[in-house]
Amino acid sequence: MHFASQQRLDDGVLEREFTLGEIPGILWTPGSASESAPVPLILLGHPPLGLRTMYPRLVARARRAAADGFATATIELPGSGERPRWPAAELARAGMRRALQAGEPVSDEIVDALILPLVDKAVPEWQAALDSLLSLPGVCGPVGYSGGVISIGVRLAVVEPRITAAALFAGSFVPRAMFQEARQVTIPVHVLLQWDDEGNDRQAALDLFDAFGSEEKSLYASMGGHTGVPQFAGDAAARFFTRHLT
Amino acid sequence: MHFASQQRLDDGVLEREFTLGEIPGILWTPGSASESAPVPLILLGHPPLGLRTMYPRLVARARRAAADGFATATIELPGSGERPRWPAAELARAGMRRALQAGEPVSDEIVDALILPLVDKAVPEWQAALDSLLSLPGVCGPVGYSGGVISIGVRLAVVEPRITAAALFAGSFVPRAMFQEARQVTIPVHVLLQWDDEGNDRQAALDLFDAFGSEEKSLYASMGGHTGVPQFAGDAAARFFTRHLT
Repeated sequence: MHFASQQRLDDGVLEREFTLGEIPGILWTPGSASESAPVPLILLGHPPLGLRTMYPRLVARARRAAADGFATATIELPGSGERPRWPAAELARAGMRRALQAGEPVSDEIVDALILPLVDKAVPEWQAALDSLLSLPGVCGPVGYSGGVISIGVRLAVVEPRITAAALFAGSFVPRAMFQEARQVTIPVHVLLQWDDEGNDRQAALDLFDAFGSEEKSLYASMGGHTGVPQFAGDAAARFFTRHLT
Repeated sequence: MHFASQQRLDDGVLEREFTLGEIPGILWTPGSASESAPVPLILLGHPPLGLRTMYPRLVARARRAAADGFATATIELPGSGERPRWPAAELARAGMRRALQAGEPVSDEIVDALILPLVDKAVPEWQAALDSLLSLPGVCGPVGYSGGVISIGVRLAVVEPRITAAALFAGSFVPRAMFQEARQVTIPVHVLLQWDDEGNDRQAALDLFDAFGSEEKSLYASMGGHTGVPQFAGDAAARFFTRHLT
């Protein structure tokens, strides 16, 4: 992990851009975090639109988490931002766009081609990032995962024991295979669902929530569209992490 | 409204039993409430099991609300507690029990016979109680409705303009006709759903949530069965009222 730049935000949060091999990422730590007072880490998931595009929403989530006493970190997803595309994903994305434009359902084959390789590639990267992040002074476990892509969050919740709580954003296509994986999730899960999110399959989100094997799981559905998560729903997710990571 | 008895609970909450004509009820006001500093009122809905049976859960909700600065009040439902039964409801209840024991779905006819007359009878009573309660020193609007029977909450949200926010508990049968009424609800609504509540039709609860015409509506689904609403879900409902009634 190589730190490329750092800046102190006006609320005292330290923002550090890093690279992990070829993968760019950002780490935010609250002003209070230090080697002798490390803070738990939340991984900030996001849709594959590129870190640069997502930055305003990510930094807002990071500031809120820092105010609650958490470090946060995120990395560029495979095939996003400056990272190389791979042909199968491009093909699947074109297929998805065609289906959406034609007002047709996106087929299981397209969803699988779009999401499954992304999960397979991204999850080991998040785990490698975790190795590096947890070795830094000022950052410690337990670790939370927050946001989307929900299938990445599900896989991480199953395979990564350092992640002990997940607040998942139901806003992306879910391959059939992920419902089986969801049954293996046992950590506390909090699902955010935007009820009238036109780009999201509401029934799939409800089915996925139903599938989680966790003893504690909660679903918070609100109005406001894909990017319109209301403040009070964000607050509920923040309290979920405060309950489980502190 | 006639006050039958009063006691001061250990947290300073004043509990007063009253009768409104033939209808028994209970009013709880925080120690701080006075004529010069009246507090908003939350009506505590409950299943038709009788106030005496429901008392432990009601007083717990009342204490929590009082700590948040709210008065709370509840009245006995028609056909519950010491109040006279009516034959059609008894017949419907027997039909429901037969269906449940046989593992069969409860028919629309039985649900209608069980719930619709209850709503028709109960709602004017809650409104009459509201007239009296809001004339008391120490109690003021805006008013919230909290809990079940969810169809009573829906009807009140439609017909009673003094009620400006409703946290509804999805734990009872919903007559088909209520979905139409739900479309007329425009006040902020927060729905509590116990995901694995065996006595509740989850899909009906989701359909009802979908039907609400409110710009702000949220659904909080948790595990724990009908009576096992977790503390954090209760907290979210409490914050909903703090947001909308203060």
